[in-house]
Amino acid sequence: MMALTLLRRKCVAGTDRAEGSDDTLVTGPVVVLIEPQLGENIGMAARAMMNCGLTDMRLVKPRDEWPNQYAEAAASGATMVIERARVYDTTEAAIADLQMVYATTARSRDMTTEVVTPREAVVRMKKDETCGVRSGVMFGKEAKGLKNDDVALANSILTVPLNPVFTSLNLAQAVFALGYEWFQLGTETEDAVLAIPKETRLANKMELQGLFDHLETELDDSGFFHVLEKKPTMVRNIRNVLQRARFTEQEVRTFRGIITSLVKKRKS
Amino acid sequence: MMALTLLRRKCVAGTDRAEGSDDTLVTGPVVVLIEPQLGENIGMAARAMMNCGLTDMRLVKPRDEWPNQYAEAAASGATMVIERARVYDTTEAAIADLQMVYATTARSRDMTTEVVTPREAVVRMKKDETCGVRSGVMFGKEAKGLKNDDVALANSILTVPLNPVFTSLNLAQAVFALGYEWFQLGTETEDAVLAIPKETRLANKMELQGLFDHLETELDDSGFFHVLEKKPTMVRNIRNVLQRARFTEQEVRTFRGIITSLVKKRKS
Repeated sequence: MMALTLLRRKCVAGTDRAEGSDDTLVTGPVVVLIEPQLGENIGMAARAMMNCGLTDMRLVKPRDEWPNQYAEAAASGATMVIERARVYDTTEAAIADLQMVYATTARSRDMTTEVVTPREAVVRMKKDETCGVRSGVMFGKEAKGLKNDDVALANSILTVPLNPVFTSLNLAQAVFALGYEWFQLGTETEDAVLAIPKETRLANKMELQGLFDHLETELDDSGFFHVLEKKPTMVRNIRNVLQRARFTEQEVRTFRGIITSLVKKRKS
Repeated sequence: MMALTLLRRKCVAGTDRAEGSDDTLVTGPVVVLIEPQLGENIGMAARAMMNCGLTDMRLVKPRDEWPNQYAEAAASGATMVIERARVYDTTEAAIADLQMVYATTARSRDMTTEVVTPREAVVRMKKDETCGVRSGVMFGKEAKGLKNDDVALANSILTVPLNPVFTSLNLAQAVFALGYEWFQLGTETEDAVLAIPKETRLANKMELQGLFDHLETELDDSGFFHVLEKKPTMVRNIRNVLQRARFTEQEVRTFRGIITSLVKKRKS
């Protein structure tokens, strides 16, 4: 067994994408479910994969027939993953074409093995992939997990850091933890963006000042600032909270309408 | 509506943990399921929460009776979450004690709202929590998601970055995406560690050199290095691959046993 960390390196000659591979468009780790029991769980795992852009699912000795109607139903539209799934008689056959294999397990095994988190594993998989190295992740059967013999086929153990008093993870959730990390790695989504409807835009400071002036004039008029020495502080506080709201230009107009409407009621 | 980014700040006086709160030991965001339909999904969500150390679940108008036997079964032991779950008639009531509320949605809404990823959201929630600010995340009913009226009660939208052609996320998976990020934030798990059984340890270089010497002597003896000028390179290559394996002291002994055994066979 070779420690994974020692294989980290930039691509070197001879390790570019495998020639003649028909999977050149497939990216991301292969998901290998070993002796899965419920079709429903296979389907939910397929759905989780599709959510994360993973499409290569392999099944080693599924308990029930395959194709499986419960799997198809639970996949909720992730049909492509289900249809492409391949069935194998042995774990060895299922992983034969892979160069790096991870074994998912929560329990510590009495083995000398590197244990990586999904977050770290996907970084390695991504780097490996650019060098033509395909990775796969094995998931054991519901409740029981992987056998030690299967774990011994892996380069590393993959463990999802979870609440130590409750680590029993649903199969589809375990697949999702991997897929989720994989997809986050590739996505260029901003951590936070302000979504604004197409027909409007953030108000500029002139428009916002117009709102402030409008509101403060009416508040003056209504006697709101009756303790005059407090007025500057009150004005600042009101402006602060309105600034924080990041008004669109449309919302400025709406709020000016609100002021006008409230004033009308008082004046009438 | 106030933009969340503008509320980022260190704790200031008066925002310390709420007085008289009976939830002082609870940490992490509250999970608010709005009009959930299947008890099974509530149970799987509870299991996902427990996996991630979250315990405060609230249900707004669940379709079926509560307590619900299907929820209990699907929770697979996350009984504490199910038993503590509270049921509300309105979303407003369910979030009344929370200061920051996020609305989970994949679809873009025709609203001016900040959209954050789970990874960013949990960082904010953690900071807020240290200032006594409790956060909650709303999840809509299966398939349909949240109503716009519920989204409008939130400070921000929370969107899990997913495969744009397949964003339909199972309810429990959406809860898990949040919980998973929350737990990763708090965990001090190393990205990668070498797990070694208690009764052994990594071999030291003297032990490893012993293995090299043993192997190379026997290879010499067996005629393996018959092209003498190639011997230095071959020795280096063999040592390289064995170094990468990061042998334990036990494994060194095993491999020396292997060499002895192989030699015996040849010699006999």
